[in-house]
Amino acid sequence: MGRARDIFTDWPGKPQTQDGVYSEDEVRLANRNSGTLLETLRHDVTPTGAHYLLIHFDVPDLDPATHRVTFGEGFDAPFALSMDDIRALPRVTRPVTMECAGNGRARLSPRSHSMPWGVEAVGTALWTGTPLAPLIARARPRAETVDFAFMGADQGFDRGVEHDFGRSLTPAQLAELDVLLVYEMNGTPLLPQHGAPLRLIVPGWYGMASVKWLSRIEALDTAYQGFQQVRTYRYRDHADDPGHPVTDMRVKSLMVPPGVPDWGSRMRFLQAGKVTVQGRAWSGGGRAIARVEFGVGDIWRDARLTPPPGRHAWTGWEVDWEAPPGEHILRCRATDDAGHVQPLTAPWDVAGFGNNMVHEVGVFVS
Amino acid sequence: MGRARDIFTDWPGKPQTQDGVYSEDEVRLANRNSGTLLETLRHDVTPTGAHYLLIHFDVPDLDPATHRVTFGEGFDAPFALSMDDIRALPRVTRPVTMECAGNGRARLSPRSHSMPWGVEAVGTALWTGTPLAPLIARARPRAETVDFAFMGADQGFDRGVEHDFGRSLTPAQLAELDVLLVYEMNGTPLLPQHGAPLRLIVPGWYGMASVKWLSRIEALDTAYQGFQQVRTYRYRDHADDPGHPVTDMRVKSLMVPPGVPDWGSRMRFLQAGKVTVQGRAWSGGGRAIARVEFGVGDIWRDARLTPPPGRHAWTGWEVDWEAPPGEHILRCRATDDAGHVQPLTAPWDVAGFGNNMVHEVGVFVS
Repeated sequence: MGRARDIFTDWPGKPQTQDGVYSEDEVRLANRNSGTLLETLRHDVTPTGAHYLLIHFDVPDLDPATHRVTFGEGFDAPFALSMDDIRALPRVTRPVTMECAGNGRARLSPRSHSMPWGVEAVGTALWTGTPLAPLIARARPRAETVDFAFMGADQGFDRGVEHDFGRSLTPAQLAELDVLLVYEMNGTPLLPQHGAPLRLIVPGWYGMASVKWLSRIEALDTAYQGFQQVRTYRYRDHADDPGHPVTDMRVKSLMVPPGVPDWGSRMRFLQAGKVTVQGRAWSGGGRAIARVEFGVGDIWRDARLTPPPGRHAWTGWEVDWEAPPGEHILRCRATDDAGHVQPLTAPWDVAGFGNNMVHEVGVFVS
Repeated sequence: MGRARDIFTDWPGKPQTQDGVYSEDEVRLANRNSGTLLETLRHDVTPTGAHYLLIHFDVPDLDPATHRVTFGEGFDAPFALSMDDIRALPRVTRPVTMECAGNGRARLSPRSHSMPWGVEAVGTALWTGTPLAPLIARARPRAETVDFAFMGADQGFDRGVEHDFGRSLTPAQLAELDVLLVYEMNGTPLLPQHGAPLRLIVPGWYGMASVKWLSRIEALDTAYQGFQQVRTYRYRDHADDPGHPVTDMRVKSLMVPPGVPDWGSRMRFLQAGKVTVQGRAWSGGGRAIARVEFGVGDIWRDARLTPPPGRHAWTGWEVDWEAPPGEHILRCRATDDAGHVQPLTAPWDVAGFGNNMVHEVGVFVS
């Protein structure tokens, strides 16, 4: 039970990690949080229940009949909306690809001690809700507003600091991003673990911005200082680096691992001959996918692309491969229309954020 | 890439494990497979998408429009049923609690090298389908039948053996168990990862018996020798022990961890004073829960029980606790109506099956 005290005192020195070896805390987080199933990348929309889940604290138990979201502090015309109020507003449905900012953390060396994501923390859902911007305008934020804070009903501790999960967006970001207040996912009411009854969706950004269990919106005349905004989700070279904020998703791609797996190692086995390899690629900030390459060893070739189901959703890709007998490493590499290309090795970040290195799948062809 | 060869040669010597330290393979499995979220134990029915998932191979891509389940080999009146055929049969809905046989594996010492479940591999769903027994009777199994085999469409390797996932039940087991062919979960069509379009539900047994992506049923005149029946899911004292089959679920209980969590350690923090602690308890084989005790340190007291939503579903329990300041270990312990009591320490099994030791939650009360 010494751990309860340690988490108050041992920061910023996180537990040391060792490549290829994981702690009890990391495995506990991996049992609780869920990656997607890579074979479901064959679907335009991730099946309900297979979308990744990263839940910082506990899922709150909110009653949709009484839940309200308040546009309160810092607004000249504050109000609160019930779920009925929100469902009566203009309704839009958007396919949006969302990835956890920590996805790929376990592929860095050294690895940050946190949720040890491999590659699976991503998914695409059909989100239904109403645009946020008209509601912000209706609440009349004060002229001196420099930040909007979005607070969830989930709370807990991180590094000894008790806080509600909260994130912020500046007026300029809000004007640029197509932010939604969302109450349905894939055509059914939001599930508890996805933020029921109401969440934010910030298309193009990593998932931390899409606050779940949304309860309060505030207009601030100084930059929001919430833990999840200033103490984490920042790109940092080292533990003392103030860094800069994690925002939109870096260009990335994944493949459906071909063949059949071995249970324990997830190594893939397939027969020699033609195999169609498929996958998905995405980039944040509204950037489109311009190219996906498929690599066997050091030989790369272009994949065929299929149009994304929406501006903020992933692009399908596929390629025919004549698989020769032997052991191979298959890779995929996406390029977006701003010219960003996935790196072959992990970009360094002390907390393992934004790792968009190429996906690698080992196969044994017989 | 040496691993592809190793898995063919290094059995029965599995990779050695070390308490509190986990391998890359184990973490990969934990990222892919999903535990439930303990706070959703407050619901009678686990929210869709929060039910545990253990998927040996890949989720197959089956088309419900063309999928058939065949009652073939070994039957005198073989037939195949489409999903429309099955939906036209008598329809029943049952709440069933299902647990992975490997749940709790990570709490054994030494730990078997496999999916490192803590406590979260359990869930309760409303399963809708049709009883299996009348269909077996209609297909007229030959008089010499000693086993029925149920084959899924999922395939892959385990310890170098390629196989479809398959399991069997004897005629006596079939007569005793209320086995269903299921096509809906919680009121909606089965999701791909839960066995769409058709799966078996074997109430009261650990999850391995409830074959997903059900494709073929056969009547055998000798005991079924499928990998998942004879090479695993057996209670064994040591690696060379032939052991005996894992069948119905042992008595068990879990609690909703009270208070709020620390992100990384999942330690719990709460204020001193009255707190209502709640949870669920279940046992297999149709046994009812007779008692749940709540323990703080070595002091145990009875919890109040609420009736289960069905004979094969979990029983709710709750207890009021006057939390004193300090650090405490909370535990819960269930007893079923056959007199089975959860042990305080893990029952030994070389593969970590059937670990029903009491659930322990550390809390820090201020």
